[in-house]
Formats: sequence, structure tokens, C-alpha cells
Amino acid sequence: MLETRIQTGLDAVEAAMQNSINSDVETLQDASLHIIKSGGKRIRPRISLLAFVLAGGDDMADVATAAAAVELVHTATLVHDDINDHSAMRRGQVAVHARWGRTFALLTGDYMFAKVYAMMAPLGTEANKVMADAAVTLVEGETIQAKAAKAGVMDRETYKLVIERKTASLFIASAELGAILAGADEKTRACLREYGRYVGLTYQIVDDILDLVGDPETMGKPAGLDLAQNRGVAMTAVNGNGNSAVLEAEAEEDDPVARMMQQLRDSGAVDVARIEADNMAQKAREALYQLPRSEARDELESIIDLIRDRES
Amino acid sequence: MLETRIQTGLDAVEAAMQNSINSDVETLQDASLHIIKSGGKRIRPRISLLAFVLAGGDDMADVATAAAAVELVHTATLVHDDINDHSAMRRGQVAVHARWGRTFALLTGDYMFAKVYAMMAPLGTEANKVMADAAVTLVEGETIQAKAAKAGVMDRETYKLVIERKTASLFIASAELGAILAGADEKTRACLREYGRYVGLTYQIVDDILDLVGDPETMGKPAGLDLAQNRGVAMTAVNGNGNSAVLEAEAEEDDPVARMMQQLRDSGAVDVARIEADNMAQKAREALYQLPRSEARDELESIIDLIRDRES
Repeated sequence: MLETRIQTGLDAVEAAMQNSINSDVETLQDASLHIIKSGGKRIRPRISLLAFVLAGGDDMADVATAAAAVELVHTATLVHDDINDHSAMRRGQVAVHARWGRTFALLTGDYMFAKVYAMMAPLGTEANKVMADAAVTLVEGETIQAKAAKAGVMDRETYKLVIERKTASLFIASAELGAILAGADEKTRACLREYGRYVGLTYQIVDDILDLVGDPETMGKPAGLDLAQNRGVAMTAVNGNGNSAVLEAEAEEDDPVARMMQQLRDSGAVDVARIEADNMAQKAREALYQLPRSEARDELESIIDLIRDRES
Repeated sequence: MLETRIQTGLDAVEAAMQNSINSDVETLQDASLHIIKSGGKRIRPRISLLAFVLAGGDDMADVATAAAAVELVHTATLVHDDINDHSAMRRGQVAVHARWGRTFALLTGDYMFAKVYAMMAPLGTEANKVMADAAVTLVEGETIQAKAAKAGVMDRETYKLVIERKTASLFIASAELGAILAGADEKTRACLREYGRYVGLTYQIVDDILDLVGDPETMGKPAGLDLAQNRGVAMTAVNGNGNSAVLEAEAEEDDPVARMMQQLRDSGAVDVARIEADNMAQKAREALYQLPRSEARDELESIIDLIRDRES
């Protein structure tokens, strides 16, 4: 029953995403479709839909647009990120900038974000405030990360700030938008926010672990990519010894990234990061346990494990 | 009296712009402030304020945020444009990407646009729809222009499409937002939209003329810049012979841009473009004449001349 409703919602999300980027300017439509259709796990919209049901929402059409908008923000971010990181691949496909060039990739990201704004506009002040604040926070997180990468230093504090703003922000919005559109009470909304936050933190730490130990084939991108960019140095950061510049200095031999990866694996940093991910997952669970048990709550709980145990 | 109210409004606009980009992420705040404070004529917010007064608006605080948001959209666009065009200078200052690098310039543009969204969110569905649609159209216009530039062909039809979407869209929103926030009736709103549209078209044609014949010192950027980028070839386009690729082929000597500029000046294209700008200015005037005369209407009319006769 719930499964059917969520599937109906997810179908509506896909339709909303694809309709939204409809344009007579072919490049924008083609490039947007390329990244939208390249897959992605749709975890954020799934959370919006489940939060909506948990909070008593009825018609899935009422939440599908917002859920699609959340996924589009995420997708727009990927397009701009890949420009900045010179990543040629994304989700096993060629990145937008690698296929259409930087100029059109920049414009495609702008376009998708403008479309998010247009989709959200009719959904009321509260929903728009939540989405806008998430977008602002997300860009701040990206910027802090880029600064740390440029300086070659990612300490534990900075790492926490980055994942909080860059990743948790949009997961919070995913859950909160579901709550708002279902007309949730204050407590439900607050608990879902907290759930979103900790699920987001879990997600990012696992992402950074996978960059180091994941199978490139399963992930659709090379391993060590984030590390090479001096970005997702979760291991060093979580581990507390924090200064990736040191590692960088040591690694000026052939294939320095592979060597750094080996060093990090050997140091036990991955195990420490896994413990941190488990802690965040536990906090996400506790946020849910403040709410009455329901089928939707169980489903949100299973998403936590899905995120923690994923291999791509 | 009107002058005082508009000045109050413009002061509020500056304050709103500067407050909006307040962030603990220094790079975003510094880079945003750099471009905001580098000047700009604030024509769009001035139009919003005057449209608001014309339509019977009372407290200038009710329109200042939207007027500031319009100018921020414009400013964010400049930051991203300069990345794509490799323009080192903007408003007589070093461009954001030239000073902070491409990564941070891209993020600064994203940040300013996210802030626009956050500022607008509390202003109601209608205002947000207008702003969102303008943003979408603007990006489409930029994309059509970039495609034409890449192909080396800018015909008259494409040129009209580009200036309509890239420039007129935001001028329309400027005027319409003033009308909406004053609670204007349908007719006033439609006339102000039309005024915005034709003022925007006038603005862009004059801009493209100035690129060719303007004084680089007055303009704060080199002459022929748009021409060199194969962008603002208003002269060829308006003139109807349209194919800048031909000019490009002829111009493969030393200082090809200077030679193309000379060719265009000699061809009488500038005179044709001036006539087209006059036509657009006249249509803007006619849109205003459908509304009862008032001090605000006179002021909006004088803006048309200001735009047409400007030298930078």
C-alpha cells in the first residue's frame, strides 16, 4: 500500500523533473535531460515523499513538485561541481561540461536552478523559504570546501562544517518540505528536520569512504577522485590528524593519489569514518523514534541503513 | 517629493543588496560586495520603484527588497557572464573570476542567485512567479547567444530573440514587480510590462552600439569586446546582412577586432541600429501613454531618453 503510493510519487517526480526542463533552447533541454536521465538514487525525493506520508499527507501530487525540485537542486549542483572539479565522468556517463563545454554547463546549471525556483513559486512562502535557505547554505558549504581544497588543509572542524552545509542542508529541506506540504505540526516538522540532517551527514561520510575504498565500476567514477581534488578527505579529517597538506607533500611520486589512498587505508582512517557514519545513522534513528511508529516511519528508518550500507 | 521617495527607495535597495549577501563565508561576501559596490546604474531597481509609485504604491519599503533582488539577478548574471567571456574587467574594476578565480566566481554567482530566491520567498506567489520566469528566460537568452557566438553566425532573427530573452526579460520583471507590489490593476500591470520590455530592448541595442563606438574610458571596459566575442553584433544583425562569420573570415589580419569595428562603422550599421533603438524607445513611450499622466510616469519616460542617450 505504502509502496504503491511512494512509487506513484516517484513516477510523478520523474515526470515533473523532465517536464520542468522543457525548453525550445535545445542545448539546455538536452544537457539537463542528459544529467537527469543518467540515474541517481533519488534518495532526496524519496525522503520528501515519505516525510509527507508520515506527516499525514494525502495526495502524492501535492508533494511531487517539491520533491522533484529538491532533486533538481542536487542535479544542478552536480553540473556546476563537475566544472569546478574538472570531473569528466558522472554517474557512469560523460559529465555535462565534458560533452557540451564549460559555457553551456554553467548555463545548464543556472537554468536548472532557475527552473527549481519557477516550480517552487506556487507552493507557498514557507516551502519557498526552506528551499531558498537550503540553496544558500549548500553554496556556502561548497565554497568552504573549495577554500579548504585550495589551501590543502581539511581539518576536522572544517570537514564537519562542509558536510553540514553542503550535504545535510538539502536533506533537511527534503524532509522538511514533505512535512510542510502535509501540514505537519511543529514537533513532527522538527523531528523530520533532525532526521534529514543526520541522514545527510551519514550520506556524505559514506560518500567520502566510498571515494577511497569503493569499486570504480559500481560507482561510475574513478576512485580517489575527491581525494585527488583535496576534497573529501573524510578519513584524515574524521581521524583527527587532519592536515592533508602533509600527505600531499609526501605523495609527490608517481601516482601520488594511489599512494595517498593506500596510506589512508593503512592508517585505519576508514574504520574511524565508519564509526562516525554509524553514530550519525544512530542519531537519525533517534530522531524518528520521537515520532509514533508507522509504515512511513519504518521506511524512513530503512533508508538510513540503505545509505549506510550502500556500495555506490 | 517624488525625487525624495525614489532616493529613499534607492537607499533601501543598496542596504538590502548589501545585507542580503552577508555571510560568514568571507569569500562569498567579499566577492559579492566587490561586484555590487563596483557601481552599475541601478536602472532596473529605479524602474521597479517608479512603477510601484505609478501604480499607487505607498511605503517604499514594500518594493525595495524586490527591486534589490532584480539588481542582484542582473549582478549574478554579470559574474557568470564574465567567466564565460573571459572578460577581465567589469565596470572599470577587475572581474570577480579574474580576482578570485573561476571556481569562486561560479560559486559567487550561484550564491547571489540563491540569495535572490531567499529574499523573494516572503513576497508572495505572484511576485515569485514573475521573478522565476524572468530568470529562466534570461538564461535561455544567454544560451541562444552563446550558441550563435560559437557558430559565428548572428542573424537578425536570432539577435532579436537574444535581446528579448537576455535583456528585456529582466526589465519586464523590474516594472511588473513594482506593479504587483503596489497591487496594480491588470491594465496598469500590462502597460508597465510593455514599457519594461521596450526599455529593455532599447537598452541592449544601445549597449551593443556603445561596444562599437563608445569611449573605453567612460565605459570601464575595452571597446569591441562583445564584437570580439562574436556576441553583440547588433550592427550586422540590425543591418540585416547578419553573418558575422563572413566578417570574421575577412578579419584574420593583425588586430582583427579593430578592423571589424572599422568595417561596421563604415557600413552605416551603427546608424541603422540607432534608428532601431529609437523605434524601441518610441514603443516604450507609447506603452506609458496608455496610462494617466503622473510625476512617476514622467520620470519613467525620462528614463527612456536616459537609456537611449547614455554614453556608458
